[in-house]
This record gives sequence, C-alpha cells and structure tokens, in this order.
Amino acid sequence: MIDERILRPDLLRKIVTAEQAAQFIQDGMVVGSSGFTKAGDSKAVLLALAERAKQDPLKITLITGASLGQDTDAALAGSHALSRRMPFQVDPVLRKSINNGEVMFIDHHLCETVEQLQNRHLPPMDIAVIEATLIEEDGSLVPTTSVGNSAHFAALAQKVIVEVNLSMPLTLCGLHDIFLTGGYPNRSIIPITSPSTRIGRASIPIDPEKIVAVVITEIHDSPAQIVPPDEKTTAIASHLLEFFNHEVRMGRLKESLLPLQAGIGKVANAVLSGFLDSSFHDLTMYSEVLQDSTFELFDAGKMTFASASSITVSEACYARIMKDFNRYKNKIVLRPQNISNSPEVIRRMGVIGINTAIEFDLYGNVNSTHIGGTKMMNGIGGSGDFARNAFLSIFVTQAASKENTISHVLPMVSHVDHTEHDVDILVTDQGLADLRGLAPRERADIILQHCVHPEYRDALKDYSDRARKRGGHTPHVLEEAFSWHTRLAEHGTMKA
Amino acid sequence: MIDERILRPDLLRKIVTAEQAAQFIQDGMVVGSSGFTKAGDSKAVLLALAERAKQDPLKITLITGASLGQDTDAALAGSHALSRRMPFQVDPVLRKSINNGEVMFIDHHLCETVEQLQNRHLPPMDIAVIEATLIEEDGSLVPTTSVGNSAHFAALAQKVIVEVNLSMPLTLCGLHDIFLTGGYPNRSIIPITSPSTRIGRASIPIDPEKIVAVVITEIHDSPAQIVPPDEKTTAIASHLLEFFNHEVRMGRLKESLLPLQAGIGKVANAVLSGFLDSSFHDLTMYSEVLQDSTFELFDAGKMTFASASSITVSEACYARIMKDFNRYKNKIVLRPQNISNSPEVIRRMGVIGINTAIEFDLYGNVNSTHIGGTKMMNGIGGSGDFARNAFLSIFVTQAASKENTISHVLPMVSHVDHTEHDVDILVTDQGLADLRGLAPRERADIILQHCVHPEYRDALKDYSDRARKRGGHTPHVLEEAFSWHTRLAEHGTMKA
Repeated sequence: MIDERILRPDLLRKIVTAEQAAQFIQDGMVVGSSGFTKAGDSKAVLLALAERAKQDPLKITLITGASLGQDTDAALAGSHALSRRMPFQVDPVLRKSINNGEVMFIDHHLCETVEQLQNRHLPPMDIAVIEATLIEEDGSLVPTTSVGNSAHFAALAQKVIVEVNLSMPLTLCGLHDIFLTGGYPNRSIIPITSPSTRIGRASIPIDPEKIVAVVITEIHDSPAQIVPPDEKTTAIASHLLEFFNHEVRMGRLKESLLPLQAGIGKVANAVLSGFLDSSFHDLTMYSEVLQDSTFELFDAGKMTFASASSITVSEACYARIMKDFNRYKNKIVLRPQNISNSPEVIRRMGVIGINTAIEFDLYGNVNSTHIGGTKMMNGIGGSGDFARNAFLSIFVTQAASKENTISHVLPMVSHVDHTEHDVDILVTDQGLADLRGLAPRERADIILQHCVHPEYRDALKDYSDRARKRGGHTPHVLEEAFSWHTRLAEHGTMKA
Repeated sequence: MIDERILRPDLLRKIVTAEQAAQFIQDGMVVGSSGFTKAGDSKAVLLALAERAKQDPLKITLITGASLGQDTDAALAGSHALSRRMPFQVDPVLRKSINNGEVMFIDHHLCETVEQLQNRHLPPMDIAVIEATLIEEDGSLVPTTSVGNSAHFAALAQKVIVEVNLSMPLTLCGLHDIFLTGGYPNRSIIPITSPSTRIGRASIPIDPEKIVAVVITEIHDSPAQIVPPDEKTTAIASHLLEFFNHEVRMGRLKESLLPLQAGIGKVANAVLSGFLDSSFHDLTMYSEVLQDSTFELFDAGKMTFASASSITVSEACYARIMKDFNRYKNKIVLRPQNISNSPEVIRRMGVIGINTAIEFDLYGNVNSTHIGGTKMMNGIGGSGDFARNAFLSIFVTQAASKENTISHVLPMVSHVDHTEHDVDILVTDQGLADLRGLAPRERADIILQHCVHPEYRDALKDYSDRARKRGGHTPHVLEEAFSWHTRLAEHGTMKA
C-alpha cells in the first residue's frame, strides 16, 4: 500500500511518526503548511507540535494557504505555540489570541502570501509540512484536496515534511495544475484564458533532498458545516438570480454568465444552489473553493467546468465524490492560490465575484473582517483579489441580525476592506442595490431604498439627510459616523 | 500644412470651427474626451461647448482619461454644463460643484473606466472628442501627448470629433502603442513583459464614417506647475532613497531597481530627481505620466526606458523636448491607460509604486481623495491600480502642515482608498515606516516611531495605548477615532 504512494524508494526510509517529524520544527522557526479552507492540510505533524509545545514551550510563525481543519489552529493557539500567523484563519480559539494581542496575525489577500515570500518581504521559510496523495519517482508531490500555497512552499522552504494521506483516493492524481510564477524580473505571463486551461504539471516539483521526513496518515479532511438555506439566504439568492436574469435580458450577460467565484459559506451555497432551478446553463467557476453546491450543479448538468484551489464539502458530499472521483475529474482543476486568485486571470476572464460582507455603508464601502472596527473575525481571504478585478463585484449580507439589534447597513463601516471603487452590487435579504456608474449620493439613495432593514431605514435616512446639509462628495456627520457601533457596544442594540 | 496632417482627403471636407463641431454635442449626451493629466486633451471643442452652455443651457456626462488642461473643467462647471463627470479631475471650480452635489462625480480607478464602458456598466457613449497629431490615410488617429482612454472611446463612441493640433510635432508619430483589450468572453492576454514591449499599432483605429467633424488647433498643453523641492519633499526623497539603498544592500533589489511608477506632483518629482545623485542606474518606468524628472533622468543617463499614458511637463521642459523629440522617442512609449495601469502588467513586472497620500492612520490605511472624510480633492486616479499590484506599494505625505495644525498621521483615516493590505511603506518628512510582514499593532508602533510629527506623537501614542487596553486585532477607541478631524473643523487645529 505504502509502496503505491511513495514511488521514490529512498523516501521510504524517511517514514517517521508525526511526533518524530515535528522534532524538525524548532522554536522561532517560520513554518509553512498546506491547507486551504480546511482541505488538504497537515493533519498530524502540526497537532503533534501543539502537543509537544504544552511540555516544551515554543513559538513559531505559521503560514498556510488559508484556514486549517482538525482544530489545528485551536491546538496551536491553546499551547501558545504561535507568535505569528498568516494569511487567514477561522478558528475561535486562535481568534481570541489574535484579538488579545498574543498572536500577531497578518491578514493577506490570499494571492499575495507567496508574492511576499518570493520577494523576501517576509522572513525565509525554514520548513514546510505538505499533505500529499502520492510522492512521484522524482520526489514531486501530488497534492490532495487543495493546492493552496504548497507549490511555492515546496520551492521556498529549506526543509519539507510530507504527510502522505492514504485516505485520499489515487484518482486525485491528474487533478492539479501546478504552475510557479517565478520571481522578478523576467516573470512569465500566466497564460490561462478559460477556467479549464491547464498550464502546468500535475505534481509539485521539489528537490528530494529537502524532504526530511514522511508521515503516513489516513485522516479525512474536516468537513464543511453546511447550513441549509433559510429565509434570509433564500431571499438574497433570489434577488441575485433576478439580477442575473435582468442582465441577460439587457444583453449584458449570456445564460452561461461568466466564470463565477463564490466565497465560502451559507449565502454562497444558497446562491449557487439557486442556479439549479433556473434557466442558466453551461456555467463555469473560477473560484478559490468548490463547495457542495458546485457538485450539485455538475450533477444537474448546469455546470461544465470549475477551477479552484480547494474542495471543501460536507461529510456526505465528501463520501460521495471521493468514492467515484473520476466522474468529476475532467470537470475540475485545482491550482495554486496565487493562480486561482490571480488579478491577471480574474480580470482577463471577467469573473463574477460573490463575497460575504460583515457590514457595508451608505456609500458601498465594505467591511469583511472586523467586528466593531477592532476584533478580527477570519480575514479578508480572497474577497479582495476577486472584488478588485471582477467583471461584477457583488457583496451579500443580511440586512439586520440578532433580533434586529444589529444593522449590517450603516452610516459608515467601522473598518474598510473593499472601497466603494470596488463594489458594484450589494444584496441583502431586503433587496439588491445596483451601484454601477453612480456617485456616492446616488449610491446612498439606492442603498437606502433597497438594502437597509425597515427598522433602520428612517434612522439611516435621517443620518444621510443631515450629512448632506453639511455638503461634500461623500457626506458624513463624522462625530456620529460610528454612533451605531458605539450604541451597540454600550446598550446592546444599534437602535436609538 | 493641413494636408500633411490629414492624410485622408474626404476628412478635409469635415473641417469646421470648434463652435460648429460643438453643435454635435447635445443636452443629455454622454461625451468622451481625450486628455490625461492635462496632456492631449480637447483644447477647443469642449471650451466652445462651455461657452454655448452659458446661453443655451445643457447638461452632459463627461468621461475623460484623467484631468483636463485649459481650465476646461472650470469652464464647463461654471456654465453648469456637467451633470456627471468621471473618472478624475483636479479643477477647483469643478471640485466645488462636486462637493456641493451639483455634479455627480464618479471616482474610478483609472484602469477601469473603459472596462465599465465595454461591459456596458455605464451608459453608451454618444460622442467623443479626441486630439490628434495626425489623421492617417485609413482614418486612424495618431494621438498627441497622451493616449488616455482615447483608443477605446474611438471604438465605443457613436460619433467622433477630431481636434488636429498643429503645434504637436510630427515626430510624435510612432511614439504610441495602441492595443485594445476587447470585450468578454475570449479576451486576450496583454503580452507586455517589460516597459519597452510594444504590442499594438502606432495609431488609433477608427471607422472613418464615425468622424463627424475635424477642428484645427494650435494650442500647447497646459503646463505642469513644477514646485521646486523644499525641505519636506527633500527629506521624504532622502528617506526613500536610503530605503532603496538598504534594499540593494539586502539583495532584495538591484541598482536598476524594478520599473518605477510615481504619482504626479512635487513629492514624486523630488523622489525621482533624487535618483540623479545616486548610485542607481539603468532605471525604467512603467507609470501613468512622465514628468520633468523623467527627462532629467534620461539626460543624466540614469534611465533607459519609460512607459506611460501621458507626458505632462513644465513649460520649459515642454519646449525643450518638443523641439527635438527624436532624441527621446526610442526611450518612451505612450499606452492606453488601461494598459499603463493594468493590474496584469503591474503585477507581472513588479512595479514599485510611489503615490501621495492626503493622510494615513496608525495601521497604514490611506486616504488619497477626501478632505475631512467628505470633500473630494481630485480622485483616486491610478494610485489603487498600482498600490494593489505593486512589488512595493509606497505612500508619501508630509507629517504635518499648515503650521502643524494638521497632522497627516491619524488615529483613523476619515476615508479609506487603500487598505492596510495594500500599503507596504509609508514615508513622511519625519521618516520611513517599513510595514512589510507586520500585524496592525506592530504597524502602529513603527508608524509612531518613524512617521508622525513630534508635536502629535504623544497624543497618537496616548490614543494607541488606550485603544490597546480595549483589545482587538486593530485596536481603536471608536468614539474618538475622528476626534482629530472634528477638532480641526471646530477649532482650526487637530491639537487638543
């Protein structure tokens, strides 16, 4: 069995336990790990390190593709083993350590982490842990359910630990398209012109001398928690589908649309599932992550091809697709995240980007990361990579939440991740605001009309009216701009 | 003389006065105009329209490359002839009309205006006015000192008025590289791999039937106002040169650096002039605009090639270079602004972007556009196109101004154009903050240490300390975040 997975015999001698492999990681090191949206992550070595750190304190810088599964971030943060973490996370324990200042979190656009490593704007990477389906004869690594930053980590790290995961089907071989952009100057064009373009090789090249340890695992990816559509997410999806229908009627889009990107989560899943009962067809994706809805669209014959950096699905979907992966293999490609999220490719193909906002304001500025302007939730992820370069940049959120004590449409966002320049369409369960070609005052009118929850409409209108009396291109009453946030903090509601 | 400039005989019959040509522009129309940073703009027709509007009121939407010269925006705003204006302006009269809500201004990333037109996210263009050096036999237009959005306007507008400017030397022919990206789907790669790569043709293709009028002018571009370096701009330039020297010593850059982009204005000029007395050599530019300093660097043998969308220089420099343009022609190319500012090309070449901030905050968020959070200054221009995709994204501003009543380093910026994700280096006359790889709290420490004016350091430190006591990834005291701005508005100083 293991011979089938490690085709280079000298590496068989490097098989060790996760605990032994973790010994290569020392205090102060910069550590890379595979893993993107809980898929294809290190499932053993980092957890062994977290365990060791309980007895033998150490601090590392951990750089991943995106979020990890297996509660690894919780274990590492719980053992105080993280001094620095980038570029993304979704873990409640780590989040707490970030927000109390114990862990320095660097919130990257997901396409930029390897840029910064390659450009030596970050310290050099001492060691990387990379999950693989298979090690080829030349030592190269076939990734598992994500590519993330693994290809560049393999190139840039001084040492590499490989976790060969026997639970990953060998049918994953051939799924990946590994292309390294190379450094400056004389960097190459990324010649992708459609989601299905393949430009690289099927495995991650690596100098086999760098591989210091191989660990065998048999652990499934942590499943995505699929929340079934509710009234609000269904309403958001419905507004958005109506909008796409309108765009088709106006001749601005065809029924195959343009390549879709959808952020992770229940709204994205609801929107994509909405295409199932629609007249749209021959859909494609050029996204970061493929979720359950992507496979539903394949099964329904609605989608023809999907490109991403990872597959993150529910337990049921995982079992179903892994059992017969060949059924999907010719319709999917997984790429390094600086390619899946490449500004060059996103702009060239005219991707339609759909991402989730925490809150947005009267003028269409979007906060994707911070609660109350200060507390990190997850990170910007790839939302900016797509929003900035998309054919259409769409942000969705509920109009109000927590028994309507919180309005997600505000006088001013408490933190800006996406400026008004990069936001075309805003959708809440209340309606959709088409901001294309509008000046700030016009944007405010249409957001007031379509997006804000009725219980907050008068107050927001009042703010807007009083702000306009003061004048300005983007009218505000600065001393009141955050009054809704401070009221929530003090009184538990944004209502006056 | 005119025969030499209009090589297609049937167009000679379309020569009319500016007033006659302006008759093609009617109330409610969407009008395009050449012009980028006051170079290569309509110098007669739009002014004639402004004059007519005094008697015969009308309102148009005006879309340009960037700013216009000849006080054209002032004349149009003064005659109340503008209902909508995009994507950039620098005019005091128009600015007032924008800020009082009379003119709806849409502030675009400069690379995106033609995207939005092509994608029909903006209304169709009725007519465009394009300045040309020459009309070729096939009707195609050789631009003058800028390309801006003219190539796409010629393709997208229903009618075109050409202003043939006899004052522009015929040696400009061959300077331009006209490449149209085309619409979705099946859009092409932009195959530029160095500032000197030529990928297009030398003139703007156009269906000659579209040309409804030709106007002959002989008016020079409005000159750039060159402000000589002062103590502050010299200090900023010196900090930046020291930084570049450091990067060379660390092996992260060579003495030829990477292609430079510099925003317009005195700081950019001071920084570029700073290279004259440095060890840097074989410099190149991939920028929006070429200013006096570019030609000084050519003359000094320091720069080998410069790509941009316009040439905007002082009166003296203009006279000098136009007299013998062949001297520079093989070292310069002018491109459409969606190519000069293309995310694809900027990222591929690793451009070093240097742009001016109005203010920045403790965490490195930058405001490039709004005074006091509400009043539009000029617009974001190309700063975001470069900052987001640059190898190094650098923003510069003075630490304090107006007898130090205004600090340009603040607890929180009153408007965000560039988020902390897109800002690597901040420079004031006080010093330089290298923010690469740092978390928000660390960014604050280093900005406090290096950038803030001494008269504001204690107050900013106090804010930062109190914010940290409340916790959070990006600590703030929300109810005080804009107190410096409101104090300035009320008391004429940001000092407590």
